[in-house]
Amino acid sequence: LSTVDESLFSAQAGRLAAAGSLPTSTGNRDFAERLLVDFSHGNVGAFPPNPAAIQAASAAFVDEHSAYSPYRGHGSVRNRVAGNLRTFVGGPVDPDRQLIITPGTQGGLFLALNALIGAGEQVAIADPDYFADARIAAFIGATPHYVPLEYLEGHSELDLGALEAALRGGARVLCLSNPNNPTGVTYDATQLGRIADLLEKWNGFLISDELYSRLDFGEAPIAHAWSIPALRDRSVSLLGPSKTESLSGFRVGVAIGPAAIIDKMERIQSIVSLRAAGYAQTVLGTWLEEDPAWLANRIESHRWIRDQITGRWSSVPGLQLAPPRAGSYLFPRLPATAFSTQQILARMRSELGIVATDGAEFGPAGAGSFRINFSQDPQVVVAAAELMAVLIESQHAR
Amino acid sequence: LSTVDESLFSAQAGRLAAAGSLPTSTGNRDFAERLLVDFSHGNVGAFPPNPAAIQAASAAFVDEHSAYSPYRGHGSVRNRVAGNLRTFVGGPVDPDRQLIITPGTQGGLFLALNALIGAGEQVAIADPDYFADARIAAFIGATPHYVPLEYLEGHSELDLGALEAALRGGARVLCLSNPNNPTGVTYDATQLGRIADLLEKWNGFLISDELYSRLDFGEAPIAHAWSIPALRDRSVSLLGPSKTESLSGFRVGVAIGPAAIIDKMERIQSIVSLRAAGYAQTVLGTWLEEDPAWLANRIESHRWIRDQITGRWSSVPGLQLAPPRAGSYLFPRLPATAFSTQQILARMRSELGIVATDGAEFGPAGAGSFRINFSQDPQVVVAAAELMAVLIESQHAR
Repeated sequence: LSTVDESLFSAQAGRLAAAGSLPTSTGNRDFAERLLVDFSHGNVGAFPPNPAAIQAASAAFVDEHSAYSPYRGHGSVRNRVAGNLRTFVGGPVDPDRQLIITPGTQGGLFLALNALIGAGEQVAIADPDYFADARIAAFIGATPHYVPLEYLEGHSELDLGALEAALRGGARVLCLSNPNNPTGVTYDATQLGRIADLLEKWNGFLISDELYSRLDFGEAPIAHAWSIPALRDRSVSLLGPSKTESLSGFRVGVAIGPAAIIDKMERIQSIVSLRAAGYAQTVLGTWLEEDPAWLANRIESHRWIRDQITGRWSSVPGLQLAPPRAGSYLFPRLPATAFSTQQILARMRSELGIVATDGAEFGPAGAGSFRINFSQDPQVVVAAAELMAVLIESQHAR
Repeated sequence: LSTVDESLFSAQAGRLAAAGSLPTSTGNRDFAERLLVDFSHGNVGAFPPNPAAIQAASAAFVDEHSAYSPYRGHGSVRNRVAGNLRTFVGGPVDPDRQLIITPGTQGGLFLALNALIGAGEQVAIADPDYFADARIAAFIGATPHYVPLEYLEGHSELDLGALEAALRGGARVLCLSNPNNPTGVTYDATQLGRIADLLEKWNGFLISDELYSRLDFGEAPIAHAWSIPALRDRSVSLLGPSKTESLSGFRVGVAIGPAAIIDKMERIQSIVSLRAAGYAQTVLGTWLEEDPAWLANRIESHRWIRDQITGRWSSVPGLQLAPPRAGSYLFPRLPATAFSTQQILARMRSELGIVATDGAEFGPAGAGSFRINFSQDPQVVVAAAELMAVLIESQHAR
């Protein structure tokens, strides 16, 4: 889907320039399918995996012991990952008791929520946050309590009064992502400490989705839940190499947490799909061991792309946007116009060949916004950002 | 785990011969961990994957479009698999509407049961059958109705009176595996036709786990559910390359069924783990396209191993065993002795370094039996079968 079709783009830009405004929807299905860019996920062609990871997976194919593993994953891989995580998350991790390898970080989120809550129970969810939190809760038959997250100032302000009300009302778990998906704001140690105090007071539990924490622009501190001693007994942290490292095609992630919860997650994993693919688990061995220059370059490239988009979009009247401090998502709020977000996104898709995700998927507070994953070919992003800006401006002007 | 340690085996055989009977349990943990053979799953070292599958996965790593796919899997792979399945399962399969790629066949079973039943509902399960049926039902909060399966005559006789009673009592779905895991008996078209009649009468649905249907010794007909027109609207068939083809390390499988059920399974998949690993899906493209000689050789090797074991075990007093007609499982019923199945399996593990699975895991009818997956190094199997026979005989004699 993420095909970059230069001729399509040139044609589009030409039409745009010639018309002085946007063409009306053609309803041409063929055209819509020839996408300029799919912003709903990153492009691993633009940011390819570390070759060492690919090498590890290829070597696994000829190692007869790598096909099957315990449900929680290969012991050798858990050992290596736990050792590498110690520095990254700010505390020792027991590879046998406190860690499970999951089928992607999504798989870890599913296991964690199923281990912690049941039908008829309640779960607090930051608003906005990753859409799977609420979907998994609904699958379980649990009820979401949305806890407002202020993010447009560029830092996270979780409404602690609303969190306490949710916990008082019976919520047993708080789900948040740090850095936040979709906004890119981060939680620091002070904020997590305050959240920990409330969780201790009400005997609550935290699921901390830290999938994007390595793509850190160094502009705002990100505190890992594991670095807060009070949270080690009452949180599961979800991590993995799917984003910064472009290893999403392997579907592997890692969850760390108290031994009893990890045990329960493993029992559920044995029911859901047995294990993360045995061969794919081996790529985790190379994770967090990359050349620091490789990682620095990856972060700098994303910072450059972010700055190109925010630079252009800051001049779009009425568009509200806080540059993300980490991760590769942008979550602008559209200006109020006669057109719905759905209508504008439909036009982007049909007329520009650009796919973005409706903000309403990320919770009630996301209505009126949209999300893009800007981990894409830099040239294409610059062009697409220009096209999108013109489309939004043209809507606004009507 | 499936390490073949020749010196360990020789030492064991030597001790056995010298003592004229079995040594008592040493309680030595190191020794128990140096396994002669782990019969709980197949050994992909003994029966390696088809090189074309490995090649496909390696090529996927450098194809930027293969990392992500729709939740139901890559369209190109679904097309190719659906075409190849047509002949195998005996009917056309719509690649866009009637097929989903799953994280292993286990993942497909989890999705199918979750799409078809909810908490408080009932599910009929052949007894014995694959242990995950009941575990997934329990996870959902559904109640199992066991339907006795007579298998010791070497062909399957599902108790249709018990099935009708279960359906009359409210069971909405019947789970069975064909060939049956753990016994290796098969259902033919006449039997499936009778089951279809009952499902139509009571508006029931079938989940047909056909994971082992390619390792077919040609001694008894296996009817695919898809080949029975009456079942196409009321069954999901689960298939995949994890067993005969030794591709379990990739965790990919396929489910086919009515479009509405496949849609529901995809929605659940989007919640559970998003998709089967994008790279791994590509190995399915090579599936069912192998050189016929390769497949014939694989089947013949397994037949040879099966006959070696059954030949030796047929002389063990009191051991009941029907040679499997397909698949790589043997499910002998132990002679009645003063020792429990658990005790005998514990001695096999601690004294012989041999792991087998307790039959009680496969349903109430499995108590007193054990299961081995004989897809192992042939020499090791012959030796292990001898050791196990001596152990069982020695128990019997006491």
